[in-house]
Amino acid sequence: MWAVRLHKYHDRPRVEQVDEPVIEHPYDVLVDIGGAGLCRTDVHIIEGKWADLSAVSLPYTLGHENAGWVREVGSEVEHLQLGDTVILHPLITCGFCHACRAGDDVHCSKSVFPGINADGGMAQVMRTSARSVVKLDIGTDPAAVAALADAGLTAYHAVKKAAPQLPPGSTCVVIGAGGLGHVGIQSLRAMTAARIVVCDPNSDALALTTGWGAHETVLVDGRQVERVLELTEGLGAEVVLDFVGERGAELDSWRMTKRAGSHYIIGYGGAINVPTIDVISTERNMIGNLVGSYNELAELMALDASAGVHVLTRTYPLQAVQEAMEDLEDGRLRGRGILVPDRLT
Amino acid sequence: MWAVRLHKYHDRPRVEQVDEPVIEHPYDVLVDIGGAGLCRTDVHIIEGKWADLSAVSLPYTLGHENAGWVREVGSEVEHLQLGDTVILHPLITCGFCHACRAGDDVHCSKSVFPGINADGGMAQVMRTSARSVVKLDIGTDPAAVAALADAGLTAYHAVKKAAPQLPPGSTCVVIGAGGLGHVGIQSLRAMTAARIVVCDPNSDALALTTGWGAHETVLVDGRQVERVLELTEGLGAEVVLDFVGERGAELDSWRMTKRAGSHYIIGYGGAINVPTIDVISTERNMIGNLVGSYNELAELMALDASAGVHVLTRTYPLQAVQEAMEDLEDGRLRGRGILVPDRLT
Amino acid sequence: MWAVRLHKYHDRPRVEQVDEPVIEHPYDVLVDIGGAGLCRTDVHIIEGKWADLSAVSLPYTLGHENAGWVREVGSEVEHLQLGDTVILHPLITCGFCHACRAGDDVHCSKSVFPGINADGGMAQVMRTSARSVVKLDIGTDPAAVAALADAGLTAYHAVKKAAPQLPPGSTCVVIGAGGLGHVGIQSLRAMTAARIVVCDPNSDALALTTGWGAHETVLVDGRQVERVLELTEGLGAEVVLDFVGERGAELDSWRMTKRAGSHYIIGYGGAINVPTIDVISTERNMIGNLVGSYNELAELMALDASAGVHVLTRTYPLQAVQEAMEDLEDGRLRGRGILVPDRLT
Amino acid sequence: MWAVRLHKYHDRPRVEQVDEPVIEHPYDVLVDIGGAGLCRTDVHIIEGKWADLSAVSLPYTLGHENAGWVREVGSEVEHLQLGDTVILHPLITCGFCHACRAGDDVHCSKSVFPGINADGGMAQVMRTSARSVVKLDIGTDPAAVAALADAGLTAYHAVKKAAPQLPPGSTCVVIGAGGLGHVGIQSLRAMTAARIVVCDPNSDALALTTGWGAHETVLVDGRQVERVLELTEGLGAEVVLDFVGERGAELDSWRMTKRAGSHYIIGYGGAINVPTIDVISTERNMIGNLVGSYNELAELMALDASAGVHVLTRTYPLQAVQEAMEDLEDGRLRGRGILVPDRLT
Repeated sequence: MWAVRLHKYHDRPRVEQVDEPVIEHPYDVLVDIGGAGLCRTDVHIIEGKWADLSAVSLPYTLGHENAGWVREVGSEVEHLQLGDTVILHPLITCGFCHACRAGDDVHCSKSVFPGINADGGMAQVMRTSARSVVKLDIGTDPAAVAALADAGLTAYHAVKKAAPQLPPGSTCVVIGAGGLGHVGIQSLRAMTAARIVVCDPNSDALALTTGWGAHETVLVDGRQVERVLELTEGLGAEVVLDFVGERGAELDSWRMTKRAGSHYIIGYGGAINVPTIDVISTERNMIGNLVGSYNELAELMALDASAGVHVLTRTYPLQAVQEAMEDLEDGRLRGRGILVPDRLT
Repeated sequence: MWAVRLHKYHDRPRVEQVDEPVIEHPYDVLVDIGGAGLCRTDVHIIEGKWADLSAVSLPYTLGHENAGWVREVGSEVEHLQLGDTVILHPLITCGFCHACRAGDDVHCSKSVFPGINADGGMAQVMRTSARSVVKLDIGTDPAAVAALADAGLTAYHAVKKAAPQLPPGSTCVVIGAGGLGHVGIQSLRAMTAARIVVCDPNSDALALTTGWGAHETVLVDGRQVERVLELTEGLGAEVVLDFVGERGAELDSWRMTKRAGSHYIIGYGGAINVPTIDVISTERNMIGNLVGSYNELAELMALDASAGVHVLTRTYPLQAVQEAMEDLEDGRLRGRGILVPDRLT
Repeated sequence: MWAVRLHKYHDRPRVEQVDEPVIEHPYDVLVDIGGAGLCRTDVHIIEGKWADLSAVSLPYTLGHENAGWVREVGSEVEHLQLGDTVILHPLITCGFCHACRAGDDVHCSKSVFPGINADGGMAQVMRTSARSVVKLDIGTDPAAVAALADAGLTAYHAVKKAAPQLPPGSTCVVIGAGGLGHVGIQSLRAMTAARIVVCDPNSDALALTTGWGAHETVLVDGRQVERVLELTEGLGAEVVLDFVGERGAELDSWRMTKRAGSHYIIGYGGAINVPTIDVISTERNMIGNLVGSYNELAELMALDASAGVHVLTRTYPLQAVQEAMEDLEDGRLRGRGILVPDRLT
Repeated sequence: MWAVRLHKYHDRPRVEQVDEPVIEHPYDVLVDIGGAGLCRTDVHIIEGKWADLSAVSLPYTLGHENAGWVREVGSEVEHLQLGDTVILHPLITCGFCHACRAGDDVHCSKSVFPGINADGGMAQVMRTSARSVVKLDIGTDPAAVAALADAGLTAYHAVKKAAPQLPPGSTCVVIGAGGLGHVGIQSLRAMTAARIVVCDPNSDALALTTGWGAHETVLVDGRQVERVLELTEGLGAEVVLDFVGERGAELDSWRMTKRAGSHYIIGYGGAINVPTIDVISTERNMIGNLVGSYNELAELMALDASAGVHVLTRTYPLQAVQEAMEDLEDGRLRGRGILVPDRLT
């Protein structure tokens, strides 16, 4: 089958023929990939930034945001049928550790992360575990939803955690009107009645968010903290969802957070630097956020099925991965690039 | 001033001239009433059903669902101005007991309930406490929002409690498409992404709810439990909000509740009768519900200001209270009757 | 091997030779039983009271409260070693349904209940799933802890749910000073600083509870509700844990519950019968309770390992099951009867 | 009356005669002080470190940790009697803002902080508000409990927030075995069954904590992070309560925190400096902590009344404030210094 393989850091991955994966364990599942999201993390992987962290052996297949159809199941899998349309939770988890047994499978002590430290989904077929497979309505287009598997799930997870702090009359600031922000805004609109204030340096991106539920938009032009404080009687917002986490956004976010409020750190790259007296005198919190759980992915897909979660995507054939990467790196790619392989017969 | 006074149980209340209330305590507030809701509870009061419970001395002024404008404030009131448009929390609470200090003022150990056990708002002027006054946008019409003060607040409170149990993909059954149900459905739609299934014996009432956010409607015709189970794969709903609480609804609600789910008892009149083995073997809960807190009334008004909470109302001059009561009793009153006194100069 | 088998309802089970169970699935685990609790539910099973509910085919092996040592594991089990000392969660759960993925495995939609609807642990060897096995410190005596697997876990689970409602200064009433009550009291003492009031008709049983953490004891003599109200300024308790659920305890419990408080229904046999107006006017809750989750069993065992959870037990050889049953039925058995089979070589 | 007055920053406060405070508002309360805690914050105030923040006009009376007896009450105060033994919540709060109405009075938008920005309790009589007064058992010695009013309440508040994350089998690390740490350890022991690991550079202080509930102690000698990781299978603790917040403790605390765990920042002086990738990849939280609410002070006093919360104190006559300050500054004061004025007749 065809797969997008990374052979050497700093070199572009190659599209090449490799052996199809096979079922090795009774709960393994093979999936015909219908859509694999391309993500800035893939660029970072190629640049070698994850080399030490993932310790993956090269070459391997990229792709950590995947959806498709069930191709084959292990001997013990009873709840999936061949041909089922599915989206894949990004982690393969053990099911036995304390975190898995608590429903907090993202903190599984033995998880594998296909596309990061094992073969991923930029291929015609991918192997995962029955524990990672969420069934979709039969007619769902995998390419249309693949971006929800990781980026979307991360945004949804943060919103779900924050929702109890966001009654009517409260304000949620969303930092970053990109892929995560889009899903974040729509999730906020669906699950809270809070006022949504979106901050971004791109005015076109801001304009788009109004259609998706933003009540106010603030251009990131140096006066963004001041503007958010003006919109909140000088007090800041009960919740700030920072989908950027770098280039100053992580510091702005803290300054926009109200007393007793919470700054959700979701994007990354920068660093938090706050005197402890500022933390305690205002009793503000900094909340870490990772991707959501298996059940949360199922919830997000239910939200998408009932309300429609809009994600900007542009599809490319799997073979066109180089073009997609160039578009991404050169800023020509609006929304998420989704690689679509030919379906293996 | 004019007021609607009950002199004798089982007799109609009279509209008569009484002395205006005066400020007696430093936190007292006088309010020019702009709208006073008429409620089935007023009928029950006249019938003497609350006589023992309230122990009120006759005659007294009815009206427990009130909004208007600040007329005069006590010497210590600093956060209200004359002329402020306001809605009144139904209870006057002490501010010092454990419940008040927990923000759970509805369980105040010394509360007074104007319209039930003290002079209420079916009058040109009413006395309340600064603790009961929620400021509104200056141009708000008190008659348009008065019904939210008690019925609406009760529905909102139940929805807020239930929301954490209602992620996308879950189902909330609403029993009763009347005044509380309307606010309940709109609050559910604003604050959750759950599927909303509404049950009512009146098909016109059901039709209306679809416009307000109901996803499914079920006619109460003897097959309603069966229908709800069909809509939920035979399992029932995560949450059932029973706004009726009598005439069998309280039993249906329990049967519609899923394992580990919760039956919120909001309406009243009937009785719960369930073997303990049914409770424990399914780990279902029955949750009591009263009116919401002061802050929840502020939240509901914020929700109304931002999203518009539609309440069916019909206004009557204060003098027409008899006509309004007859319309209510004879089933001619669709929505809430709101008495509007002439504003005292 | 030897096993206690039920051949016919209303007849005593027989101790007889049967084939040892074998590994059938990759996550199966065989356990050498070191202690199997005998419970009033076993008596009810023999009386046929569970026949319809469990639909089990006779003959089968009783025993739903089990601990022992790992004898053999399926091909995919990696986290258990032969000889590990273990206690068994009473349910075998699927690991894939929504409840299992939420950590709420007790509500698994496909669970099996050994000893109720499949072969249980009153035998030399029992088959369970890797998902049901909690590892213990190597030297733990299975017979000493077996009673915690079901009765103890149920009590712990209720206490854990109730703990957030029980700050210092609050009161928790415990109804029933038997096996569940003992673990309930000790768990309350370990995990809350609430005042603990225990009610029981047996004054010896009450005396015992003082040593385990009860602050007040109330004899159930017809004046128990009055006495609890006296102890709580006429208001009742924030939480009532009803470990009896029949013979009037279920009604007493409700009357002992404070406004905004919760009545936890844990024991069963009786019925709840409450007017909805009583529920709503006080905003009290009735909370259903089942056995705890897998992680909660691990927590209870950690509590036992660090603090020592005392359980009254009396051990019998497996062969003496008839004698144990007679002791139980005739009221001669103080504490839990634990059957101890000879360990198979 | 006598009072400890600060006239000039960097000069020692003087003990001098001033006018007694008088009732000015209907909810004012005058208290005969029976004990006023001396705190490192008082030293910082004298050094001018709070000058900008508090903007207090000099001279004024120090003392923000107070207990005593009710001397006089305003015209509207009904729930307090002359002579009642009381402890004072450190803040005077408005009772009307959103935070006050939520029970979160510490975040009152108009609070006054006697001893910081208004006359405090190092005096024979102090004026406060009825909202700040918690009644104690009549025989309680104010000097014995005064230290719980601020330092103790801060520690209790953090423990109460953390308790739901601390089931049996989890670990809580306490950084700092001083005044706050003492109350923290005892609160943890009373309200959780978690393992308690205490870190401090002083081995005598550590030895003391074992008697109060610590399970493990770790000397802060440069290897403390390593030691905590050894005690937690290399994973860190579910909760770290950092009562120090400076001199490296704030960085150690973060490194001792487990994935998905929380670092509670309570002490202050240092700064947090963490890359956002470390926050998100482990989904750890940093939780701000301030003093507890009014109800939490009542809870802490209930805990003290039932279980006895031990606080090391040393009493001084009010006139000996200089000596007490020197003892504090020179490290001769073990535990809290409590100033005890002569009771005014």
